[in-house]
Amino acid sequence: MKEAMASAAAAVNAEMDRLLPMVDGPESRLFEAMRYSTLAGGKRLRPFLVTSTARIFGVSPSSAIRVAASVEMLHTYSLIHDDLPAMDDDDLRRGMPTCHRKFDEATAILAGDALLTRAFEILAEPETHADPAVRCELVLLLGRASGAHGMVGGQMFDLAAKDEEMDMHAVTRLQQMKTGRLIGYSCEAGAVLGKAPRQARAHVQAYAHDLGLAFQIVDDLLDVEGDAAEMGKAAGKDADAGKATFVSLLGVERARAQASMLVDQAVSRLESFDEKADLLRDVAKFVLERRN
Amino acid sequence: MKEAMASAAAAVNAEMDRLLPMVDGPESRLFEAMRYSTLAGGKRLRPFLVTSTARIFGVSPSSAIRVAASVEMLHTYSLIHDDLPAMDDDDLRRGMPTCHRKFDEATAILAGDALLTRAFEILAEPETHADPAVRCELVLLLGRASGAHGMVGGQMFDLAAKDEEMDMHAVTRLQQMKTGRLIGYSCEAGAVLGKAPRQARAHVQAYAHDLGLAFQIVDDLLDVEGDAAEMGKAAGKDADAGKATFVSLLGVERARAQASMLVDQAVSRLESFDEKADLLRDVAKFVLERRN
Repeated sequence: MKEAMASAAAAVNAEMDRLLPMVDGPESRLFEAMRYSTLAGGKRLRPFLVTSTARIFGVSPSSAIRVAASVEMLHTYSLIHDDLPAMDDDDLRRGMPTCHRKFDEATAILAGDALLTRAFEILAEPETHADPAVRCELVLLLGRASGAHGMVGGQMFDLAAKDEEMDMHAVTRLQQMKTGRLIGYSCEAGAVLGKAPRQARAHVQAYAHDLGLAFQIVDDLLDVEGDAAEMGKAAGKDADAGKATFVSLLGVERARAQASMLVDQAVSRLESFDEKADLLRDVAKFVLERRN
Repeated sequence: MKEAMASAAAAVNAEMDRLLPMVDGPESRLFEAMRYSTLAGGKRLRPFLVTSTARIFGVSPSSAIRVAASVEMLHTYSLIHDDLPAMDDDDLRRGMPTCHRKFDEATAILAGDALLTRAFEILAEPETHADPAVRCELVLLLGRASGAHGMVGGQMFDLAAKDEEMDMHAVTRLQQMKTGRLIGYSCEAGAVLGKAPRQARAHVQAYAHDLGLAFQIVDDLLDVEGDAAEMGKAAGKDADAGKATFVSLLGVERARAQASMLVDQAVSRLESFDEKADLLRDVAKFVLERRN
């Protein structure tokens, strides 16, 4: 599994490198910052979900890799903006200085804006899919997953809720907006590219929903148990901030059991697919066992 | 002309109000900020260009107004982010406190992100045009106009070039990226919606290019001659910052003559159109005579 993910990550890195060429001139700093943060490494989970789902539906790899690159750029923009001093004020990301530490705050804001814009642009380009209706649907779904009702709304929710009592329902909703929606999009995009039948698409959505929640629970576990060197970012931040997480609400043991149950459930959603869905089955187990 | 613009502005305000409904819950602050900045007023020049160009090509008003609202949301996001402390650090916009002064920095960053995302989402929605190829082209062109090679790149250029010698070529390129490209998009989008023939589209593009440059020269003149109360934002900022502008390079008289020449040229690009292009002819004169 690690080899499959590493090879997929190398492919998406090469694609992002190609889709974000350097530019000379007074604005070159912007391109440096975009490339620095995008190519800094990372698990590339979302791109892997795009290409692995696309594989089930026989999508051409050149289409899938473009959508994978677009999703990763969007994810990267969200990390850059979330790390800003006015937000989570982080110095370290993926084991390297955050964008605003490496460059400066203004450049980091602009690099995020430009990556967000580029993500949509790539989806709309004819090379992404021959059928413009498919490209439009990809744009529309990405907008819904990542905008005020999805990821950005989730970040606002997180900032606003810092000092409030959060119960399981609220934490689940928060995490579904903040990370679940984009993980869901990553899988759904593969199905959209392959014009999957409605039933198959619903299975993929259900898989992604369970996987996204499991992913977040494991994230909370790692925040408590992981160490910063292994994770490439600060650990123990949530506990220090007194924030409600799945772990603070459920305890370590029950949280781990819940994540494990969700991963089993996610895999069971794929029953109707043949061995072409094995990568999705394997990545679900990877999500459970990851150390960073 | 003022009546035509005011009536168009009222229509686009109503559309934006409809496209950005309030939402309850912990993330409601995000929606408040998006609505505050979007509905705060402004000339609505870009929406007017969309609907006026669309009129030439017989586009349905309900299509044109959605694209107009999308462009204005994108413009508003750029104002919110440009006003941030890490960028131009402005307290006043459209005669009201800037978004980060009214709310806070984190909320302003997120409100900008969410407006940018919503702008693309609206373009991709089926209600915008029956033909997905048209919607895709609108997304693609907006991405190009507003991303790293357009508006965002122009803002980086502006920040990076602050203390350098800027000649006419550099200032023209900077302003073309920073404001010209989005003004160009506004007109081109109207032509795309109407599936305008290539020649007609080229005329519209040439018009928009001249108009955008004239608009920026007048902006520089107003920065020197205007007063803050009339403009709803700080005046004299460029001169105070020692920044090269069309006025600092050409002097007031030559700059004014240049803007006037460009407006005449812009109008001449519309020769092949009948009286349906009168709004575009009139708005060119308005751009020259505006006081804010």
